[in-house]
Amino acid sequence: MEQIAFSYNEIHDTVADLARRIDASGYSPEVIVAIGTGGFIPARIIKTFLNLPIYTVGISLYLEDHTTLPSPKKIQWIDEVEQKLNGRRILLVDEVDDSRTTLEYCIRELLSNDPAALAVAVLHNKQKEKRGEIPAEVSYYWVGRELPDAWVKYPWDALDIQEHDAAVHSREVAV
Amino acid sequence: MEQIAFSYNEIHDTVADLARRIDASGYSPEVIVAIGTGGFIPARIIKTFLNLPIYTVGISLYLEDHTTLPSPKKIQWIDEVEQKLNGRRILLVDEVDDSRTTLEYCIRELLSNDPAALAVAVLHNKQKEKRGEIPAEVSYYWVGRELPDAWVKYPWDALDIQEHDAAVHSREVAV
Repeated sequence: MEQIAFSYNEIHDTVADLARRIDASGYSPEVIVAIGTGGFIPARIIKTFLNLPIYTVGISLYLEDHTTLPSPKKIQWIDEVEQKLNGRRILLVDEVDDSRTTLEYCIRELLSNDPAALAVAVLHNKQKEKRGEIPAEVSYYWVGRELPDAWVKYPWDALDIQEHDAAVHSREVAV
Repeated sequence: MEQIAFSYNEIHDTVADLARRIDASGYSPEVIVAIGTGGFIPARIIKTFLNLPIYTVGISLYLEDHTTLPSPKKIQWIDEVEQKLNGRRILLVDEVDDSRTTLEYCIRELLSNDPAALAVAVLHNKQKEKRGEIPAEVSYYWVGRELPDAWVKYPWDALDIQEHDAAVHSREVAV
C-alpha cells in the first residue's frame, strides 16, 4: 500500500488552516473533545488557535494482539465531566477518518450527553468506502486534507524522526 | 526574560532519549498518565516507544483572566478508570517542571489511588526555586533536558510554525 508521511510542521499548518475555517464558520465551539490517542496532538495544536479546554476520550478498536474488537472498547471516558458537555457546543477532534467506525461511535456517545451542538474536525480523511457514517445531527465536518486510501505515517509514530523526515521529503504523491 | 524555543523534532528526540532511559531503568511502567494539556504531546510521543495506554488528567492553575487559583482546579480527572491505576505502575508525564506545584498536586492525587509505583517524566526542568516538591514515594524522576529559568516556547504553542522555527535556529543558549 502507498505510504504518505507528514512532518510535524505540515501537521501544524494543516491544523492552523482547520482552525481558521472553524473560526470563520461561526460555529463557535466551547469545548474540544479529543479522541485518544490519535487526536491528542491535533487537539493540543487546535487549542493554541481556539483557546478552549480539552477533554479526552480513549477508545480502542483493537486488542493487544491487534485483532479487531466487535465494538470499540472505552479506555478512558468522560464521566464526572459529562455534565460539562450537556448544553455545550462540542468540537470533536481526531487524527484520521479511516473506516469511520471510531468516529461514529464517539459521535453517538457524545450526542447521548445532549450537547447544544456537535461538530467534527479531523486532520485527514481517507477517500475510501466507509463502514461508519457521520450522523445527521453533526453541524460541521471539517477535514484538514483529503487523502487517497494510503498508509498515513504520522511524525509522532516515528522511531527515528530524521528517517521519517527523509520519507516526507521523498514523497511523490501530491496531497 | 530569556526565551528558548524548541522545534518539534528536537522535542521528539528528547522524548526518544527519555524513553530509552525509562526503558533502561527497569522501572517497567504499565500505564502513562498525561497531565493536560501540556503533557498530551510528550505522552503521545512516549507511547510510540513504550507502547502503553495513556490516561489523561486535566488541571488548571489559572482562571480565564489568568489569575492564579489558590489550589489547582480539576478540568478532567480519572474517575471510572481510577481502579485501573490501583496496583499499577504509573508513568506520569508532563511538559515542564516549572514551579513544581501542578506536578506535586498530581503526584499526591495519583498516590491516593494506591498505585504499585509512580514515576515521573518531564520534557524539561527549569532550574529555579520550586514551590512544590517531588514526594519521597516517587520511584524515578526523569528530565529530558535541564533548562535555565527561561521562557520556554513550545512548537505546539506557535501561531506561525515557520516564525517559531526561525526563533529555534537563532537560539543562542546552549541547552
